[in-house]
Amino acid sequence: MSSKLLVVGTMAYDAIETPFGKVDNILGGAATYIAFAASNFKIKIGLVSVVGEDFNSNDLKLLSERNIDLSGVEVVKGGKTFFWKGKYHNDINKRDTLDTQLNVLENFKPKVPKTWKKSNILLLGNLHPAVQLSALNQMNIKPDLIILDSMNFWMDNFRSALDDVISKIDLLCINDEEALQLTGKTSIKNAADAIQILGPKYVIVKKGEHGAMLFHKEEVFIVPAFPLKEVKDPTGAGDSFAGGFAGYIAQNSNTSFESMKKALVYASAMASFTVEEFGTENLQNVNKLNLEKRFKRIVNLTKLDSESINSD
Amino acid sequence: MSSKLLVVGTMAYDAIETPFGKVDNILGGAATYIAFAASNFKIKIGLVSVVGEDFNSNDLKLLSERNIDLSGVEVVKGGKTFFWKGKYHNDINKRDTLDTQLNVLENFKPKVPKTWKKSNILLLGNLHPAVQLSALNQMNIKPDLIILDSMNFWMDNFRSALDDVISKIDLLCINDEEALQLTGKTSIKNAADAIQILGPKYVIVKKGEHGAMLFHKEEVFIVPAFPLKEVKDPTGAGDSFAGGFAGYIAQNSNTSFESMKKALVYASAMASFTVEEFGTENLQNVNKLNLEKRFKRIVNLTKLDSESINSD
Repeated sequence: MSSKLLVVGTMAYDAIETPFGKVDNILGGAATYIAFAASNFKIKIGLVSVVGEDFNSNDLKLLSERNIDLSGVEVVKGGKTFFWKGKYHNDINKRDTLDTQLNVLENFKPKVPKTWKKSNILLLGNLHPAVQLSALNQMNIKPDLIILDSMNFWMDNFRSALDDVISKIDLLCINDEEALQLTGKTSIKNAADAIQILGPKYVIVKKGEHGAMLFHKEEVFIVPAFPLKEVKDPTGAGDSFAGGFAGYIAQNSNTSFESMKKALVYASAMASFTVEEFGTENLQNVNKLNLEKRFKRIVNLTKLDSESINSD
Repeated sequence: MSSKLLVVGTMAYDAIETPFGKVDNILGGAATYIAFAASNFKIKIGLVSVVGEDFNSNDLKLLSERNIDLSGVEVVKGGKTFFWKGKYHNDINKRDTLDTQLNVLENFKPKVPKTWKKSNILLLGNLHPAVQLSALNQMNIKPDLIILDSMNFWMDNFRSALDDVISKIDLLCINDEEALQLTGKTSIKNAADAIQILGPKYVIVKKGEHGAMLFHKEEVFIVPAFPLKEVKDPTGAGDSFAGGFAGYIAQNSNTSFESMKKALVYASAMASFTVEEFGTENLQNVNKLNLEKRFKRIVNLTKLDSESINSD
């Protein structure tokens, strides 16, 4: 029987401008990127999210065609889907948010469908921590792994709710600057240690073009980002990363550190596919063949000849 | 017969303030860090540099005790040694230069001793490109590998001299931001490709706490930085990195990409030792045992179980 991955997160329409082009109203949202990335693994995926009546049925179809269960996606009558507009600088690591319309997200009360209350992996995408906690509390049995993605906005404005949900999860996935901000530390290593005291036994620190780090007690694993000639649109990179990670862990039915290391390489591969084109365009084209190829290329980026390690 | 590594670079006294403390007038300079790092390998090292009469004989002794040949170090009578004063921010990746006194460096004409004109490896440390070129032109036989380290100051002010020396070397070692600036590209991969058109067949891009990347045609190797709890003083990290790289290449007498990959791990190890304490203090304590241990720990940071790569 396939493992079940439950994803809680936003579905959105995005307007994005980068030095490589401009798009209006394309499919976005954390849950969307996560689900597309995770759907490359042999698992069952359920989505808990909310959209407005304006949400394009073709976009729902794109997801359901990939066997992503949308029974937990609420469609609000007369409501409008969450909208985000942003512009990336010439230094593509920097961006300005030009518009945020929460719309149906404002009063989102997640409802986990009965069949998904027993999921193997729960991934709480970047959202209001109270919403993340509400979904978590609806689970009938503790999942094998609860992963939480968050960002500075929630730290700045809803710190106690965020602390509460962080205390109940197994793995926190967070950017490097945000790891420092959350803990008040000045090094990533110290920040990762401090986060483990708050609850999560595992910490992933995402570093964008510099890859990511996985921490557990004294163990550390580092995956590089795939060195692309061009990053056309970084939107959704972190979500695709989380989706690739969770998807592999669910398929592998193994939450050991060794399994997480491999998951981190798949995560990096997914993020690299996403940023090669705008929105979810390239992520949707991922298949078994190009995924395994990129996995191997990322592994080889840091690999010494095994003989050369012991030769002198 | 041991390989010969010739190092051309500055020797200096530094005054450094970081969030972890403050030191006045400690031994510094690119050539000093490079030589200390490289002296951990079974090779012959020669230094070409310049100091003033104020240079402490104990500091010269520290170097000569490590079998570093100082016959190419000019002592200028009545002259004063190059002095640099800097202060690092709470974000230790940022620093302000508070004072630079070139002193004897201002009229430095490097003189390569006769016995060092046939060296296997030539490392041109961060210096005026005209000085780097002058040293290079004194070699009787082309070294197996000519490595050049540079920085933005020379790009901004002496671009044509820098282009000239870059066209004559095998490997350029440079920071990530500087690689972009030098080439006008927006991605590291494109910058590395563009640099290879300028002359060097190999490019190392240093990324500080994010490690470093080695490029050669379509081959890429990435080494992470060792994740330290605290970086007390980043001064000399890049020079120690270059010294570790060149030292291993010289000892291995092998300039293949595979050999360079291993050299890059030693380079990262050396940089990590340096930044753990102020100045060259910790770098001087490196020995075979702790170096090999750190080498293995860096390799393990990115290593998957070899079986797990092929298992599914």
